[in-house]
Amino acid sequence: MEQQTLDQLTALKELSHKISSYGEAVGLLHWDLRTGAPRKGVDIRSETLGILSTEMFKLMISDEIGQLLQFFAAADKLEQLEDNDRRLVEECRKNYDLNRSVPADRYREYSTLAAQAESKWEEAKEHSDFAGFEPYLSKIVDMKREFIGYWGIKDTEYDTLLDQYEPGMTVDKLDAVFDRLKKRLVPLLSKIQASPNQPDRSFLDGVFDVKQQEKFSLFILRQMGYDFDAGRLDESVHPFATGLNPGDVRITTHYLQDEVTSAIFSSLHEGGHALYEQNIAPELAGSLLSGGTSMGIHESQSRLWENKIGRSRAFWDRYYDDLQKYFPERLAKVTAEQFYRAVNRVENSLIRIEADELTYNLHIIIRYEIEKMLFNEKLDVKRLPEVWNAKYKEYLGLVPPNDGLGVLQDVHWSGGDFGYFASYSLGNMYAAQILATLRKELPNLDELIAAGELEPIKQWLTERIYRYGKSRTPSELIVAITGEDLNPDYLADYLEEKYISIYKL
Amino acid sequence: MEQQTLDQLTALKELSHKISSYGEAVGLLHWDLRTGAPRKGVDIRSETLGILSTEMFKLMISDEIGQLLQFFAAADKLEQLEDNDRRLVEECRKNYDLNRSVPADRYREYSTLAAQAESKWEEAKEHSDFAGFEPYLSKIVDMKREFIGYWGIKDTEYDTLLDQYEPGMTVDKLDAVFDRLKKRLVPLLSKIQASPNQPDRSFLDGVFDVKQQEKFSLFILRQMGYDFDAGRLDESVHPFATGLNPGDVRITTHYLQDEVTSAIFSSLHEGGHALYEQNIAPELAGSLLSGGTSMGIHESQSRLWENKIGRSRAFWDRYYDDLQKYFPERLAKVTAEQFYRAVNRVENSLIRIEADELTYNLHIIIRYEIEKMLFNEKLDVKRLPEVWNAKYKEYLGLVPPNDGLGVLQDVHWSGGDFGYFASYSLGNMYAAQILATLRKELPNLDELIAAGELEPIKQWLTERIYRYGKSRTPSELIVAITGEDLNPDYLADYLEEKYISIYKL
Repeated sequence: MEQQTLDQLTALKELSHKISSYGEAVGLLHWDLRTGAPRKGVDIRSETLGILSTEMFKLMISDEIGQLLQFFAAADKLEQLEDNDRRLVEECRKNYDLNRSVPADRYREYSTLAAQAESKWEEAKEHSDFAGFEPYLSKIVDMKREFIGYWGIKDTEYDTLLDQYEPGMTVDKLDAVFDRLKKRLVPLLSKIQASPNQPDRSFLDGVFDVKQQEKFSLFILRQMGYDFDAGRLDESVHPFATGLNPGDVRITTHYLQDEVTSAIFSSLHEGGHALYEQNIAPELAGSLLSGGTSMGIHESQSRLWENKIGRSRAFWDRYYDDLQKYFPERLAKVTAEQFYRAVNRVENSLIRIEADELTYNLHIIIRYEIEKMLFNEKLDVKRLPEVWNAKYKEYLGLVPPNDGLGVLQDVHWSGGDFGYFASYSLGNMYAAQILATLRKELPNLDELIAAGELEPIKQWLTERIYRYGKSRTPSELIVAITGEDLNPDYLADYLEEKYISIYKL
Repeated sequence: MEQQTLDQLTALKELSHKISSYGEAVGLLHWDLRTGAPRKGVDIRSETLGILSTEMFKLMISDEIGQLLQFFAAADKLEQLEDNDRRLVEECRKNYDLNRSVPADRYREYSTLAAQAESKWEEAKEHSDFAGFEPYLSKIVDMKREFIGYWGIKDTEYDTLLDQYEPGMTVDKLDAVFDRLKKRLVPLLSKIQASPNQPDRSFLDGVFDVKQQEKFSLFILRQMGYDFDAGRLDESVHPFATGLNPGDVRITTHYLQDEVTSAIFSSLHEGGHALYEQNIAPELAGSLLSGGTSMGIHESQSRLWENKIGRSRAFWDRYYDDLQKYFPERLAKVTAEQFYRAVNRVENSLIRIEADELTYNLHIIIRYEIEKMLFNEKLDVKRLPEVWNAKYKEYLGLVPPNDGLGVLQDVHWSGGDFGYFASYSLGNMYAAQILATLRKELPNLDELIAAGELEPIKQWLTERIYRYGKSRTPSELIVAITGEDLNPDYLADYLEEKYISIYKL
């Protein structure tokens, strides 16, 4: 490598490290707010978060980085770089191009608006008051439409947003994928609903001691291979995982005394996110390539552990005895098979985060279609409740009794996160597709799970996904692992096979 | 105010707010490291801390602030400002002048080194391995010596360091003050040692349930008026208090099952620090004037609550019944008077943080003399254990059996905090001097304490000290409150009076 190239690369790496450090600080400030920061400090804390985030944003679009990217714009300079360094240049360029076009004052206004909107949303959700939230949401949508102008319209306006969460994802692709998924899942759902073999969940009603729930969560996380020397488990209202650095990947869960499965599956879910972040290759740590490559791939890992493994018969073959020991009074007379069936019961419902593996995707398709209308057909924000309710009627046969249980249920839009929802179903599809390869390469997968030998699974995922961090695109990863691009049939096959057995279809 | 002056002031306040935000983030990163950050994330976390601290440092010495300070260098501009704004300009100028001379890359290296050295020190202390820690400590001392060169040598090298913790403090002044203190305390100590009336501490030996210790700490902190909506109590190896903002002032303590008094008095101590930070005037929040004015004044508040109030007869008249209720099996047969005498027993010992109110000052004088040798006489770091042990023999008649109980006992040097130790004795002296005025202005002080009415004390301290934050210098405060500058005789008088009674001298 030429000396000049080396110097420029070193400078870029230092900047990447610096931005990554801001990311760690901002991540910790957020984690702390959600896990126990005292009430009276929240106002100043919010200002601190705003200031640090803006500084991080400024670094990403600084002239300094612009000049370095200019240097590496020349093909002969770029090709001197090793693979990961070239990826770093690309990652910096993506951030730079994306954000440089947004006027700083508009960005700041937007950040302030989004911060206000989240607390307005909380109030509005509590009181089912869409009218009270609508002015804020309208303003956010307007600004997002304005920003799409700065960022540049891809095939459609909504494409611009999708690409930010799932690089390379388009409306065209997703329309086709979701269409195929609907064609296979809707008839499956009808059959399931018509089945006389509905799993019983009644034994899960009532109180399960929360201290025992906590102990079981810790036990399961250890079994998964979550490294407590590189993380910690706390409580928060909404469970989340946050990777501050690969040696510090924290998860939270919540313990609901009348809903024991919530802590179990949210621990598996957040644990899956955390395994990804804990096992990113050390050489990427402290750089902009440390972190999951996309929201969809990240979700594929949480859902692989939560559902594909955690809701499998083999898993409960191994761990149901343990669960019984933690709750002897509640579960003594319940069999592993009964428990397995109960946690896989399919049910049309109003609330996304409570949905089963099948209908979850319909919740997402509803949101996807509405977001597309918002940005590509300029749907009036005022009409959202009406459109929402009509789609829930159409896809799930239910109409929310109020907007709190309907259009106001999710936080995402208050933060301007349009385009994010698709990641959840992408995660489901990626997970099923990855699982198919995993089954080929570890043919005794069910036996391993049933023996509690989860380490080979973690190792395989580390080898094929985790270690790469952001140095591979979602599409590169999925093609390299499975030999083809995203294919919704894997998820449909997986769900059919599972529910045919459970519901004896 | 002229428009131009207003604009410049606004710009300065924005910068002050930004620097203060970095301070909050750095404070949280530190707090987190000490209360539960996972082990494997520490290396990258140390780098993150180094980078954020350096950014904060760069802001303090930025050209932007330089130009603003230039503007306010003109007397006619400065005199347009209100008092607190003028203080803010002075605070910025102090930071600017101090740090402008230190090269940013050296500062960053230093920050990262200090963060690493702390975990090295922990290991070294545990294994009494001074040789393992020595290379880090030597590097820190070398860098500190180099920095003194940048900062400018005051009367002596060590003066430069002292002034940073206690503005205006000098070797000359401290030599005189410590000399006076020694002259009065050493004979008092001899008399105490010769007294036949030694308090019995044997009933404090053995196990006190740590859960009960925690409950009692929470109880006492509430009694002091510590606001749990503006703070939280956690556990850490070494207790500390940190004010992230006035609405978020955190304290930690530790619960040692065979040393019940440790948690009690460290809660009172850190609670005293916290009351100071929680009660800084709201208009200073989020600015560089938010925070204690000096380490010495800060320590005066922790020690006022820990010792002057918390080790007083009146305090245990009120709270001993409660303590007995928390530990009925252990304390049923012990009287308040016995307990009061036990927690005021004077004893030569090896460990500073376990020392009584009298010998504590000798532990400090030892460190002060050693630090003076390190910086003014270029004492070789390798010789520290030898010098340390010799001074302990001289002042306290004891030689540490190993370096873990000797020269490695304190964290301070691993963080480069040379010049800090003096603050502890300054705190003792200030506290005694402030107490003398407090007694004049609240003549029924002992009755208030004995009735558990601590609120008027907190209010008086808020009025005279807390609310000012950094907008008054230590010397201004102490003169305004007591009518004179630092005077060690108050402490000597206080200790004489106390021990004459306890030891019946």
